[in-house]
Amino acid sequence: MQGYTVPLSPRGQANLAPTPPWHYAGTAVAVEFFADPAAAEATLPQGLTLDPDSAGRGVAMFVDWQYSAGGEEYLDPARSQYREFLVTLDARWNGTPVAWCPYIYVDNDAALARGWVQGFPKKLGSVHQTRAYPVGGPATPAVAAGGRFGATASTAGQRIAEALVTLEQPVDNPAALMNRPVVNLRHFPRLAKGQHDQPAVHELVMAVLDNPAVGEAWVGTGELSFLPARGEELADLSVQRVGKGFRFHLAYTVDDLKTLTDYTL
Amino acid sequence: MQGYTVPLSPRGQANLAPTPPWHYAGTAVAVEFFADPAAAEATLPQGLTLDPDSAGRGVAMFVDWQYSAGGEEYLDPARSQYREFLVTLDARWNGTPVAWCPYIYVDNDAALARGWVQGFPKKLGSVHQTRAYPVGGPATPAVAAGGRFGATASTAGQRIAEALVTLEQPVDNPAALMNRPVVNLRHFPRLAKGQHDQPAVHELVMAVLDNPAVGEAWVGTGELSFLPARGEELADLSVQRVGKGFRFHLAYTVDDLKTLTDYTL
Amino acid sequence: MQGYTVPLSPRGQANLAPTPPWHYAGTAVAVEFFADPAAAEATLPQGLTLDPDSAGRGVAMFVDWQYSAGGEEYLDPARSQYREFLVTLDARWNGTPVAWCPYIYVDNDAALARGWVQGFPKKLGSVHQTRAYPVGGPATPAVAAGGRFGATASTAGQRIAEALVTLEQPVDNPAALMNRPVVNLRHFPRLAKGQHDQPAVHELVMAVLDNPAVGEAWVGTGELSFLPARGEELADLSVQRVGKGFRFHLAYTVDDLKTLTDYTL
Amino acid sequence: MQGYTVPLSPRGQANLAPTPPWHYAGTAVAVEFFADPAAAEATLPQGLTLDPDSAGRGVAMFVDWQYSAGGEEYLDPARSQYREFLVTLDARWNGTPVAWCPYIYVDNDAALARGWVQGFPKKLGSVHQTRAYPVGGPATPAVAAGGRFGATASTAGQRIAEALVTLEQPVDNPAALMNRPVVNLRHFPRLAKGQHDQPAVHELVMAVLDNPAVGEAWVGTGELSFLPARGEELADLSVQRVGKGFRFHLAYTVDDLKTLTDYTL
Repeated sequence: MQGYTVPLSPRGQANLAPTPPWHYAGTAVAVEFFADPAAAEATLPQGLTLDPDSAGRGVAMFVDWQYSAGGEEYLDPARSQYREFLVTLDARWNGTPVAWCPYIYVDNDAALARGWVQGFPKKLGSVHQTRAYPVGGPATPAVAAGGRFGATASTAGQRIAEALVTLEQPVDNPAALMNRPVVNLRHFPRLAKGQHDQPAVHELVMAVLDNPAVGEAWVGTGELSFLPARGEELADLSVQRVGKGFRFHLAYTVDDLKTLTDYTL
Repeated sequence: MQGYTVPLSPRGQANLAPTPPWHYAGTAVAVEFFADPAAAEATLPQGLTLDPDSAGRGVAMFVDWQYSAGGEEYLDPARSQYREFLVTLDARWNGTPVAWCPYIYVDNDAALARGWVQGFPKKLGSVHQTRAYPVGGPATPAVAAGGRFGATASTAGQRIAEALVTLEQPVDNPAALMNRPVVNLRHFPRLAKGQHDQPAVHELVMAVLDNPAVGEAWVGTGELSFLPARGEELADLSVQRVGKGFRFHLAYTVDDLKTLTDYTL
Repeated sequence: MQGYTVPLSPRGQANLAPTPPWHYAGTAVAVEFFADPAAAEATLPQGLTLDPDSAGRGVAMFVDWQYSAGGEEYLDPARSQYREFLVTLDARWNGTPVAWCPYIYVDNDAALARGWVQGFPKKLGSVHQTRAYPVGGPATPAVAAGGRFGATASTAGQRIAEALVTLEQPVDNPAALMNRPVVNLRHFPRLAKGQHDQPAVHELVMAVLDNPAVGEAWVGTGELSFLPARGEELADLSVQRVGKGFRFHLAYTVDDLKTLTDYTL
Repeated sequence: MQGYTVPLSPRGQANLAPTPPWHYAGTAVAVEFFADPAAAEATLPQGLTLDPDSAGRGVAMFVDWQYSAGGEEYLDPARSQYREFLVTLDARWNGTPVAWCPYIYVDNDAALARGWVQGFPKKLGSVHQTRAYPVGGPATPAVAAGGRFGATASTAGQRIAEALVTLEQPVDNPAALMNRPVVNLRHFPRLAKGQHDQPAVHELVMAVLDNPAVGEAWVGTGELSFLPARGEELADLSVQRVGKGFRFHLAYTVDDLKTLTDYTL
């Protein structure tokens, strides 16, 4: 049996995700927000604390992704493209500023599988962002001052987030957009009776991104709403105010992970 | 009751498509093909003949569209973005070279409704094309010689078309990509018994595109397959050979239509 | 060219809907409601008035449908099954009690096409209802007193309706569930400039149902909410109170239509 | 943080699957098949061998499921209903006849998550089966001799399986339909560099079903095709001939799992 994730199979072609490295390119619409600090703190796993310098600060990101592994997977866009909505919250691990991801949604099963392996707690959702076309005209914003980009996310037929970014100027230091490493909780339960609360995998991990790149980054104003929905807790973050808005392209490769603490019993 | 298409409603906000003008911006992956001329001819409506200079020639296009009317609809991308796969065949109307569209698929109901009004015989489908990200890296082709773009279309869970374009050079005369006006058959049946074969609308029409624009157009080699599927006749076109491949951005506005012949009884 | 709806094609297999008759079988969860009469009246087309005996009364129905024409289409369930959410309002045509359908949503393009031909103003939506399984157990309600059935509808990622029905007893006279004929507005616009407000088809029609059947009909209590959503006007109906809840199976055949008034210019 | 699967959250409402027990009710269309024994054997994990008494025999099942945990989840059908296509192959574990599931597809993220925890290697797919309505008419088969039920499965826009069952008679001993326990491989990879081939979870497990029930079971003839598709290996099973066809309802509860061998390093 060959493969990396399920399903393992004779030829190793059926698995949702092949052995890394996994390469990504994407376009992001992002809005900075300030949640109720207590609500943000309530989402943190053991080992993380709120960042005292920016308690409650977070970023909501909508990304149109394209993925490839070693086989020009981007030529099969029905499988390799997907849309993602995620929230990160400023936190500290052992004094280091990190970004904690409590909620994330994608529209593709392979992305969900890779996410779980990385510790991203992915569910399925429907995610959209306004796109810019270089050909211009009334159907597209320009990537220029005044350009406006909308974004929405829904899950199980319920709208959970809406955002709007209005560009003002290029970002001076684009690399700063990815300066906080993401910390996730890899978690996979046991099903044997009596062990439902003793997960088989439960470890705090830090993402390792190779060759990160940011391009055409613009900053401006942002608007953002998290909407209450049955079976979701995103709106519990209780956004108090909204900060800057961003739009940029990004790329990186995933081939590794750093375990911070293994809580598995 | 207000509105342009159904549903008409008190505030005129619920209709699938508002009164034109309708603005479009899109990115296209296209492959020229040569069908069996007899098969191509069999799809033509009364009033069109095959183009004797290019009998059987057609173009398969996959487009990632964004739409807007007068209200910045592109800020609600869950409604205003859609993906389209269509086929056109070289034809003649009254001596004029035109493009006839026998089959077209979209993934959005508003696009389907606008299409029917224009005479495009739209069905629902799932359509994808490789995307180029300016940030580079292994997950994206470059818009440059050697860049490769895949595209696929499916309907009702069946794959109906697969294409691959490899860029070679910029197109010298991009406007030529849109030089054949599209001719459609607006058709809307009657349901009253005894009138099932007497449609309420049945007219040959020529599309009118305002402010057409083409940008960043590249040409290269193409690969294309039409696959047999239950309830579809696309593969009956029986592609004999494939011509050039293209990738480009396009934009235009729709606010009018020219009736060539009204066959309504 | 053969076929009934678009696309017309050489073999007549590609059209969204073939020539009627069209046969239907379905399972419905329905809730009676009382809207603000002025809001209900505002949705009525020319030729209909509110029913003075039940001004504002309506029914919200969620139906899991299966369709067939002459070719055992139900053996291709990926195309022939669909889910529908619709609202009807009590109205009068020329003194006759009728049901007017202002809003309706389906998850299938063939159903949308047939609907437009009938005058149902269908848009795409995502619709679900609780199902009863005869095998029993904690994952299914019983079709019996106390059995509870939920239902939801969403469009463009936004929840627009939620319902709950609790069964109390079998319906004494099931045929009464379909005693008001449905009146629709067949409407198909023109696109030629200057004629955007002069539709090519605009006629008030009454549905004709052959061989209507209702089975296993139960009545009980109902709960219902219409939720505001961008691009929708359903919630404008402003439900004042909710009446009975129903669950039943139904079947009929569509092969005809009666034009009440043709308003086409 | 509360919850069973990801995402863990403050209130424990956001997780894809809550702590078991999980209750299921479903309707199945199933076809027995005989694969190339070598191809079937190639899918087996360490610890299983082909059943020498029925080498290559398998069952393809299409199920319309409804799920509930402790909270009447079946009243939220947008989340609790899903459709599934799976294949099982006759195998032996330690001399015991078991059913091994190499491939399985669902259309719901919660079902995918529960499946992974059970060891079912679920991917997303689009699955449909003909439904029987007690109201009768031309749009529904009867659950009676001669009744015909179609079923299809697709993934990533590619059709992978098609089946047809024609009923002949009730099943004498319905419990026999579930007499082989399902054996799965729970598998969850590591991402740390150098450990990509050392999964964090890799254990052969046997499903434990509480309160299994089968109802209204019919047997008859079956037809079945597995179709080749990019990124899938189902068709490699190379069906040599098809056996009986079945249609039945089933229900059970999952609250436990038996580990046969833990291969985790």
